[in-house]
Amino acid sequence: MRDVAVVGIGMNKWGELWEKDLRDLYVEAALLAIDDAGVDHIDSMYVGCMTSGLFNCQEHLGSLMADYLGVTPIPATRVESACASGGLAVRMAMMDVAAGFSDIVLAGGVEKMNDVSGDSATFALATAADQEWEAFNGITFPGLYAMMARAHMKKYGTTREQLAMVAVKNHENGLKNPLAQYHMKITVKDVIESTKVAEPLNIYDCSPITDGAAAIILTTVDIARKLKKPIIKIIGSGQATGSIALHSRKDLTSIDSTRHAAQKAYKMAGKEPKDIDLAEVHDCFTIAELIVMEELGFVDKGKSGPAVEAGETKIGGRIPINTSGGLKSKGHPVGATGVAQIYALTEQLRGDAGDHQVRGARVGLAQNMGGSGGSTVVTILEAQS
Amino acid sequence: MRDVAVVGIGMNKWGELWEKDLRDLYVEAALLAIDDAGVDHIDSMYVGCMTSGLFNCQEHLGSLMADYLGVTPIPATRVESACASGGLAVRMAMMDVAAGFSDIVLAGGVEKMNDVSGDSATFALATAADQEWEAFNGITFPGLYAMMARAHMKKYGTTREQLAMVAVKNHENGLKNPLAQYHMKITVKDVIESTKVAEPLNIYDCSPITDGAAAIILTTVDIARKLKKPIIKIIGSGQATGSIALHSRKDLTSIDSTRHAAQKAYKMAGKEPKDIDLAEVHDCFTIAELIVMEELGFVDKGKSGPAVEAGETKIGGRIPINTSGGLKSKGHPVGATGVAQIYALTEQLRGDAGDHQVRGARVGLAQNMGGSGGSTVVTILEAQS
Repeated sequence: MRDVAVVGIGMNKWGELWEKDLRDLYVEAALLAIDDAGVDHIDSMYVGCMTSGLFNCQEHLGSLMADYLGVTPIPATRVESACASGGLAVRMAMMDVAAGFSDIVLAGGVEKMNDVSGDSATFALATAADQEWEAFNGITFPGLYAMMARAHMKKYGTTREQLAMVAVKNHENGLKNPLAQYHMKITVKDVIESTKVAEPLNIYDCSPITDGAAAIILTTVDIARKLKKPIIKIIGSGQATGSIALHSRKDLTSIDSTRHAAQKAYKMAGKEPKDIDLAEVHDCFTIAELIVMEELGFVDKGKSGPAVEAGETKIGGRIPINTSGGLKSKGHPVGATGVAQIYALTEQLRGDAGDHQVRGARVGLAQNMGGSGGSTVVTILEAQS
Repeated sequence: MRDVAVVGIGMNKWGELWEKDLRDLYVEAALLAIDDAGVDHIDSMYVGCMTSGLFNCQEHLGSLMADYLGVTPIPATRVESACASGGLAVRMAMMDVAAGFSDIVLAGGVEKMNDVSGDSATFALATAADQEWEAFNGITFPGLYAMMARAHMKKYGTTREQLAMVAVKNHENGLKNPLAQYHMKITVKDVIESTKVAEPLNIYDCSPITDGAAAIILTTVDIARKLKKPIIKIIGSGQATGSIALHSRKDLTSIDSTRHAAQKAYKMAGKEPKDIDLAEVHDCFTIAELIVMEELGFVDKGKSGPAVEAGETKIGGRIPINTSGGLKSKGHPVGATGVAQIYALTEQLRGDAGDHQVRGARVGLAQNMGGSGGSTVVTILEAQS
């Protein structure tokens, strides 16, 4: 296997982007990444997108994006793993370069969720759950994560305030990210008093509906050196599945796919949780960030709430999480999220994160998951000198 | 790179399968392939499916299928390239094994198209075209391929009867395939007098709406020998893109993505068109089989009609095409088609094709394309002694 590095990153400002369509978003981010890498061609391409069929009546994204990016006839592969589609695109691109099938590969993610063509964005997103046993019977993701939150509160004594503190921290980080959808400071009181969605989760516990894209360029470490780019190496990657439906799990407070994917990524990287300087994790709901912290081994089971309360996950804390603002404040165009996590980590590991820079950051971890945790991709990056 | 072989194949009877849902179809085919291979586990899995979001309100197929097949937490990746999704699943699985990431990989394809949840199957399929410039303005695939047919007839003198002969041949072959959707002999007169769809294409020029799945098991040649299975080696694989919209092409009678994918596959295999003993090609419409024959180099440009008329593509002819019945008679559950092509070729190269066996077949080619040719995957298999 060849060593693989991130040499280019691109992302547009996320939000409600009524004047841009799906292909505009993808091509914009892709061109930014190509420009950042300083490459004059790409050999193949991966497109992470969850449900452009339901959102935009458009499938066949490999052909569409290769065509509009002007790179036909290169191979272009669309991958889908619900909200982990972006992380999966990164992983497939890494495998493509590592194995020597391609030298320079673009991994992009995109979702255009606002001008939804079907019933509603919440309906489209619910296709990441088990349609026949969950969604068809009326439950959507806020309800699924609310059950996980209730179970975590009951089992471990996690408090309503601790959930809120995740959102408060991520919005505070997002204030410093010019590409984030929301720039607003919120308080624990704001979260607790915001509109109820599914007890105990309020609107400020939930990630938003977002249009956006992100892209990265991967190549070999050897080519990266020739390009005179900072070497941000992918040292670990893990992908795993778990039961798609919540009712099949032995424990509502665990996400097996994240634990398995993390174990594989740590093993490949030769690292342990304590070696990670910062992480971007999948905070689709505040409770998700807490459970994921535990599955990644950053804290013991049940200890995530107190860790957030103690400020351990803030910038400057023991293990800063979602310094980019996370899904909560940066936005969550589902297929783009996993790629944007790598964008954020690369910025940090290059030392280019401005006033939200984590000092001395050398090893970063991204955790991107689909649905209520039916799939996860974990990626570990390390800055090389 | 490690040498990769097909060691297991599975497929259910295709048709209007009202009593089975999407997951039933996939799991059924997957279990048949696992049983045929005689393996006791798989290391990773690929799911080819075009638009289960629009057809079945279900995305996140990696998690869903791994869960229902009982193989979590293995990595499971859903890939989409419209009607080439199955071929793409095969290609990704091949890369996975060749690179050494996994030893035993399942590639499956599935589509459940009959109990469509959205507007109509034709609408869902049109999301493989350029939504904003083609589908939204009212054209669907019969219309797109009809324009290609008209151009081919005008430029090369291809006749209405020659188009019909493609359907007649494929239905004749399908009669001998117990898993095909249709078992009926048709005549050139039947085709020409059948219901008009889009001039010059009638209903018997079009592949049907089908529920079905197919799966194969890939592993290294070394493991295949230990399993004491016939060695059907993947000696070539090519993937390419072209413009998604028909109006962007210089010539309506060419499919660039097929030509590029074939060139890559021939080069990797060290073979030429004349070395191919039989082929499964993407006859979504009769005209598609004709143009594809030319792009694959089986005949010169414009000579496909006369070649079909001369019987060159029948079983026993110079280059038998779609001995399984093709999309036309076997059916076309879009995500499954590319995997079923490998199923059909493997059966032939093992010498297990019964009364539609091509005598002495050693090298077979599969060509699977998306939309009006915006993407193509070509795979070349060879029986090893």
